[in-house]
Amino acid sequence: MNQIEKGFVYLRRRMVFSAAHRMFHPEVDDAVFGKCANLHGHNYVVEVVVRGRVHPQTGFVVDLKKLKDIMEEKIMSQLDHKNIDTDVPYFKNIVQSAENICIFIWQQLEGHIPDGAELFCVRLHETENNLVEYYG
Amino acid sequence: MNQIEKGFVYLRRRMVFSAAHRMFHPEVDDAVFGKCANLHGHNYVVEVVVRGRVHPQTGFVVDLKKLKDIMEEKIMSQLDHKNIDTDVPYFKNIVQSAENICIFIWQQLEGHIPDGAELFCVRLHETENNLVEYYG
Amino acid sequence: MNQIEKGFVYLRRRMVFSAAHRMFHPEVDDAVFGKCANLHGHNYVVEVVVRGRVHPQTGFVVDLKKLKDIMEEKIMSQLDHKNIDTDVPYFKNIVQSAENICIFIWQQLEGHIPDGAELFCVRLHETENNLVEYYG
Amino acid sequence: MNQIEKGFVYLRRRMVFSAAHRMFHPEVDDAVFGKCANLHGHNYVVEVVVRGRVHPQTGFVVDLKKLKDIMEEKIMSQLDHKNIDTDVPYFKNIVQSAENICIFIWQQLEGHIPDGAELFCVRLHETENNLVEYYG
Amino acid sequence: MNQIEKGFVYLRRRMVFSAAHRMFHPEVDDAVFGKCANLHGHNYVVEVVVRGRVHPQTGFVVDLKKLKDIMEEKIMSQLDHKNIDTDVPYFKNIVQSAENICIFIWQQLEGHIPDGAELFCVRLHETENNLVEYYG
Amino acid sequence: MNQIEKGFVYLRRRMVFSAAHRMFHPEVDDAVFGKCANLHGHNYVVEVVVRGRVHPQTGFVVDLKKLKDIMEEKIMSQLDHKNIDTDVPYFKNIVQSAENICIFIWQQLEGHIPDGAELFCVRLHETENNLVEYYG
Repeated sequence: MNQIEKGFVYLRRRMVFSAAHRMFHPEVDDAVFGKCANLHGHNYVVEVVVRGRVHPQTGFVVDLKKLKDIMEEKIMSQLDHKNIDTDVPYFKNIVQSAENICIFIWQQLEGHIPDGAELFCVRLHETENNLVEYYG
Repeated sequence: MNQIEKGFVYLRRRMVFSAAHRMFHPEVDDAVFGKCANLHGHNYVVEVVVRGRVHPQTGFVVDLKKLKDIMEEKIMSQLDHKNIDTDVPYFKNIVQSAENICIFIWQQLEGHIPDGAELFCVRLHETENNLVEYYG
Repeated sequence: MNQIEKGFVYLRRRMVFSAAHRMFHPEVDDAVFGKCANLHGHNYVVEVVVRGRVHPQTGFVVDLKKLKDIMEEKIMSQLDHKNIDTDVPYFKNIVQSAENICIFIWQQLEGHIPDGAELFCVRLHETENNLVEYYG
Repeated sequence: MNQIEKGFVYLRRRMVFSAAHRMFHPEVDDAVFGKCANLHGHNYVVEVVVRGRVHPQTGFVVDLKKLKDIMEEKIMSQLDHKNIDTDVPYFKNIVQSAENICIFIWQQLEGHIPDGAELFCVRLHETENNLVEYYG
Repeated sequence: MNQIEKGFVYLRRRMVFSAAHRMFHPEVDDAVFGKCANLHGHNYVVEVVVRGRVHPQTGFVVDLKKLKDIMEEKIMSQLDHKNIDTDVPYFKNIVQSAENICIFIWQQLEGHIPDGAELFCVRLHETENNLVEYYG
Repeated sequence: MNQIEKGFVYLRRRMVFSAAHRMFHPEVDDAVFGKCANLHGHNYVVEVVVRGRVHPQTGFVVDLKKLKDIMEEKIMSQLDHKNIDTDVPYFKNIVQSAENICIFIWQQLEGHIPDGAELFCVRLHETENNLVEYYG
């Protein structure tokens, strides 16, 4: 179950990565993707939300240092300063939409949240006007 | 049901409109509304959240171009650079609170979200400190 | 129950307070807290979300003036321009993590929301990259 | 002379006011003003920049409390929650453009900066995309 | 001369474009450019500042509609949703640094500011932490 | 001379540090400092502006990596997660105002800007409403 539950604290950590992408699918006409069919790029803002109960001694839901390390390894090293079109094997046959990049990040993180906390949501801002969220 | 469900992606599109409004109700004393009883204005930031499953070929929850067109027609053309007090018939007998403008926007959009996606939430920022959300 | 319900409007009010804090627990090694073991400070951004039905005459979920007064009394007067380490008795034996400050704010507000509205969420931004949320 | 000088510190104070306005001039066709000819409104963000030398004991260029009071009296009480079109006599015969509102604010403040500091710049954001600056 | 002068109003218009780029020069080792040697991308925020005297009837320094049209033609159509590395001839032999993109934008605009206003500054944000400015 | 000159590019790098401070001077009454006389804290945003001519091969005004290293050493290691009141010797006899912290940062950086670029401005945001600037 994925709805808001009593007693949990939700912690959100934000990072920014810069990447090139283009929208392409062999069976879809480029016109569907408009100007996004051309290779371009974004400063993607990613927010990872985890939830758990507060540890009575540390006061933490999760050790932020560990969460940052996981995000560096699973998100930043894969996507930051990359051309998603050629550098990220996952997108070889998957359209590089914000929706799919968000699901990719979820899959990268799932099972790797430290300290017994639970991955709750991945939010990806493509521009200041467009964002997508995924809850698994 | 309106809670967070597995497998969905939530897409949020943001637009800004500038409008004048005042708080007024024939049976309410102006003092209740304080300085908001005087005609003034805002840069309202509206965020429309739709949800759906990702299309396997386009990678989209919804075609953003179509969503933008709907938002232009149903929100911007109604509210941008308007005096809500005199230009929007809906508010003839309804107080022009952020809450009611948010519900108005929901009603404008309901049934018009393209590509089988579902309207999930309308969020309206009146100032950088105040916002309201409505889930239908 | 605390999940999203039909017919409600959610209103979020944002305030900022500046406070000093440090991470400390007598049974936890300072190394666990890293540089946060040293007294430092933040501009904390707090968002209080209440929900309720819109009053047919005022158009309000809650009278914002009353909500602001409650937040001034229960949050700002306790935390703004304070050293949480020495000035806030609640944290005498409780680690001053963002998580615990968020829960403290919830407990301060609970039962004090005016006009029959319900406290729904407290969100606390410690920096532009870290935030926590609590739903009771 | 108004250029950047050595030894000065420049202090910028930001406030936000909400006002209705419209673009109108008896000798100008409404088409010149486009949709801005219709009464609408903004959350105007005003930044006042003063400059001076740092006082050796207080460490201040200007007592911020006094500066805030002047800005409340000279800007906020004149413009916040007002309809500039009808509530501000200065604009009876002057177009309510961002440029002119910025100059109006400068004239309101000139000669009233406390503690021997100098008014250096008034900056007015009409939207997140448009701003004007005036240096006297 | 390019310094701040009395009587002028400075108007700043902001736009955002999304582009891919990489840092490359045939005589410079890739290591100098670090991870920026790899093709990646940004949401570039460009601010164009023009200055002039306020027209007594329109209240404008410059007709914003005309300025937007020039910026669309000279900036957006050249850079938005482009791969600067292959799509913009100017950068065939010029490193695609933020500095050089900023100068490119200046050169694109110079001589094209409408209504007798003067191009004063081009500011380019590459990320939320890095920006460059050019005054000609 | 410190005014805007032709041919230069100005590069601004932004960092954030979290610190505790209080306003105190032995010869000034605490009442002058109001609530700021109490130890509290901020997320200070510092922007360092350097200027120079663009290197024809690298396209840089300054190697950003080197500038970041200098800022880490001269600003962050001195102020981040510190109690300015007790941890920074410079402020033993100097009031910890934003003005003086800004001047301190200038003095820390002066003479250490790499690649022949020139330190032009230090800007320090204490809150989202207050900032100070210093040009030497």
